[in-house]
Amino acid sequence: MAAVTYEHIKTCKQSGARLGRVHTPHGVIETPAFMPVGTQATVKTMSPEELKAMDAHIILSNTYHLFLRPGHELVKAAGGLHKFMNWDRPILTDSGGFQVFSLSDNRKITEEGVQFKSHLSGDKLFLSPEKAMEIQNALGSDIMMAFDECPPYPAEYAYIKNSLERTTRWAERCLQAHARPQDQALFAIIQGGMHEDLRRQSAEQLTSMDFPGYAIGGLSVGEPKHLMYEVLEYTTPLMPANKPRYLMGVGSPDALIEGAIRGIDMFDCVLPTRIARNGTCMTSSGRLVIRNAKYAEDFGPLDPNCSCYTCSNYSRAYIRHLIKADETFGIRLTTYHNLHFLLQLMRDVRQAIMEDRLLDFRDAFFESYGLNDNERGF
Amino acid sequence: MAAVTYEHIKTCKQSGARLGRVHTPHGVIETPAFMPVGTQATVKTMSPEELKAMDAHIILSNTYHLFLRPGHELVKAAGGLHKFMNWDRPILTDSGGFQVFSLSDNRKITEEGVQFKSHLSGDKLFLSPEKAMEIQNALGSDIMMAFDECPPYPAEYAYIKNSLERTTRWAERCLQAHARPQDQALFAIIQGGMHEDLRRQSAEQLTSMDFPGYAIGGLSVGEPKHLMYEVLEYTTPLMPANKPRYLMGVGSPDALIEGAIRGIDMFDCVLPTRIARNGTCMTSSGRLVIRNAKYAEDFGPLDPNCSCYTCSNYSRAYIRHLIKADETFGIRLTTYHNLHFLLQLMRDVRQAIMEDRLLDFRDAFFESYGLNDNERGF
Repeated sequence: MAAVTYEHIKTCKQSGARLGRVHTPHGVIETPAFMPVGTQATVKTMSPEELKAMDAHIILSNTYHLFLRPGHELVKAAGGLHKFMNWDRPILTDSGGFQVFSLSDNRKITEEGVQFKSHLSGDKLFLSPEKAMEIQNALGSDIMMAFDECPPYPAEYAYIKNSLERTTRWAERCLQAHARPQDQALFAIIQGGMHEDLRRQSAEQLTSMDFPGYAIGGLSVGEPKHLMYEVLEYTTPLMPANKPRYLMGVGSPDALIEGAIRGIDMFDCVLPTRIARNGTCMTSSGRLVIRNAKYAEDFGPLDPNCSCYTCSNYSRAYIRHLIKADETFGIRLTTYHNLHFLLQLMRDVRQAIMEDRLLDFRDAFFESYGLNDNERGF
Repeated sequence: MAAVTYEHIKTCKQSGARLGRVHTPHGVIETPAFMPVGTQATVKTMSPEELKAMDAHIILSNTYHLFLRPGHELVKAAGGLHKFMNWDRPILTDSGGFQVFSLSDNRKITEEGVQFKSHLSGDKLFLSPEKAMEIQNALGSDIMMAFDECPPYPAEYAYIKNSLERTTRWAERCLQAHARPQDQALFAIIQGGMHEDLRRQSAEQLTSMDFPGYAIGGLSVGEPKHLMYEVLEYTTPLMPANKPRYLMGVGSPDALIEGAIRGIDMFDCVLPTRIARNGTCMTSSGRLVIRNAKYAEDFGPLDPNCSCYTCSNYSRAYIRHLIKADETFGIRLTTYHNLHFLLQLMRDVRQAIMEDRLLDFRDAFFESYGLNDNERGF
C-alpha cells in the first residue's frame, strides 16, 4: 500500500476541475487544496493551532532551508519534522532544487548534483538526488519531492531539454535512494519550460516510473500567465488521473481557480504570507494595502465578507496602526487573514466543483476581485 | 461610587503582604498582580486570547505612545482602547510622564507642563496634566495615572524636592481636569527619590487629595535594589490601606516577591516581553538564554516545571532554531512563556499569602531561581 493515495470524488461538469481527497499517513487533504508554506519549520508568524482553526489540511516546508538550519539530523533526532514543529497534519517537503537555483550563490551543476554556497554561512554544500532523499527521509514528511533542476525563464530550448532529461535521471536516482516508501510518498516534478513537446517528453518519462504523485515545476517563474495556463492545458492531461497533481509555487487567487479548472489538485505559494508582512491583504473586492492613509479611521473589518479571526475582531484602523508601528501582532492579523482567504477560496472552489458551477464561480469571483483580463493573463 | 475599589482579603501573617481584589469597570484584578505591558495598544507579539489563556487580569498601555500614534482622538473614535484592541478586561494607562523623560528629546519643563520632541516624527509636542487627562479620558482606561515628573537617578535633593512638589500641584490639576471619575479611576504617583522625608512629603500631600489609588514612581531607575526595598519599606505604610498600591516599572521575579512582602498590590514592567525578544527566558531554575549552543539538541521544554503553552508543546531545540532563524513564532513562544511565568509567580505568591507562608515561598523560590544575596539586593 502506497503512503499516499488519491481518491477521485467527481469532475466538475462545467469546468473539468477535479474534486478529490489525498490520503496521507497524517490525515486527509481535500482537493483542490492550497498549502501554506512553512519554510523554516514554521508558517511565518502563525501557530499550528491557528493553522488548524483556519482548517489548513497540509503545510509545506523547505528541504533547502532545514538542511542549512537547523540540519536534518537534528530534526530527525527531535522525532521528525511533525514533532519538532508540533504539527500533526500532513507535511509536504520540497526537494531543495528550486532554492538551490533561486537562493544560493556559485552554483555548479554536474550530473552528480549541485554544488553551491549556503546563503547563510557561505559554506560550500552539495545537494544531489541521494542527499535530497536522505534529508527528506530524516524530516519524515508525508510527501517528498524529487530533486529537480528548475531552469530559469526564459531559457534556450536545448538547455531546457538537457535539464529535463537530467531531472528524469535524477528522479530515477531519487526513487532508488528513497528509504521509506511505505511511510513517505515521493512525487516527481515534470519540467520542460513552455514547450509542449518537452513537457510531453518529461511527463512520459516520469509517469513510466510510477511515482505516487506528480508535480508541474518551472512555472510561475516570470512568464506571462496565459503561457502558464497553456502549459497546464497540455500538461495535466499527460498526468495520471488516479494520482495527485501538484502545481508548484502558485498562489494568487486567480491562478488557483484557473489551475483547478485545468485539473490541478494541490498548490503552494509564499504569496499570502509574504504580502501580509507588508500589510497587503487579499479581500473579496481585491487587494487592500492597509498602510494607505485612507484606512486610518476606517473602523470596519479588512473584508466585510470574511469570517476569519482578524475580520471578526479587528478594524482596518487598528491593523493599520499595528503595521505602521512595526508591531508583530499586525502581521499576525494580516497573515491569518490572507491564509484564511485562500483556504476559504479553495473551500468555495470545491463546493463549486461539487455543484458543477466552477466557471460561474470564477466569473463572479473575478468580477468582485476586480482583475481585468490582462491581469488574469488573457 | 468610585470606578475602582480595593477589597482587602487578608494579610500574610508571616510576611505582611496583602491579598486582595481590585474591582474595576472591566472586571476584577486579583492582587498582588503583575500587569503585562501593551505599549502601543498590543502586548508585543501576543493576542488578547493568549493573554486570557495565561489569565492576565489587566494590561497596561502607554499614553505617550498612543498620543503620538495613532492619536487618542482616533482611539476614541474607535470606541475607546478596549474596543480598538479587542481587550475587554481592565486596562491601566500611564500618564506619559515617564516616557516624556525617558524617550523624547529637547524637553523643556515648566509649571504648565512639558514641551518635547516626538521620538518618531521630531514634531514639537506638549504634555500637561490637563492634556494627560484628556488623552486618558479619550482612551477610556479603567485606571488612569496622574501626570508626574520622574526625576533621574541620581539627582540633587533640591531638584527632587522641587520636582515632587510640582508633581503634587500637577496631581491636583489632574483631579480637576479628569472628566470621567465615575468610569475611570485616577491614581496619583508618589515621588521623592530615595529620601524618606521627601517620600513622606509626597505621600502626605497626595493622600490628602483622596485619589482612589496610589502608585510609587521613580524606582527601578538604576538605583541598587536594596535602596528600592528601603524606599518601599518606609513608603507603603504611608499609603492608604483601603486603596490599591502600585509599584511602577518593576517586574523582575525577585522584586515582585519583595515588593509584595512590602505591601505592594500591582506591578508592571516590559522586562518579560523585552528579554523574550532576545530569547532570554525566565525559568524556575533561573534565566535561560535559548541562543546558547548547549540547547541546540535539547529536546526538553524551556522549563520542566512550567505548564504553559510553550512548555507543553515545544522543545528548547525548536525555540532556539526559530530565534536563530529570526522567526516571529520563536518570540511568540518565549514571550508567552515569560508572561506566563510571572503570572504564575503571582498566583503562587497569592496562594502563599493565603497560607501565611510568603517568606518561606520566597526563600524556596530564590534557592531554585539561583540569585545570590548580591543579585537580590542584600
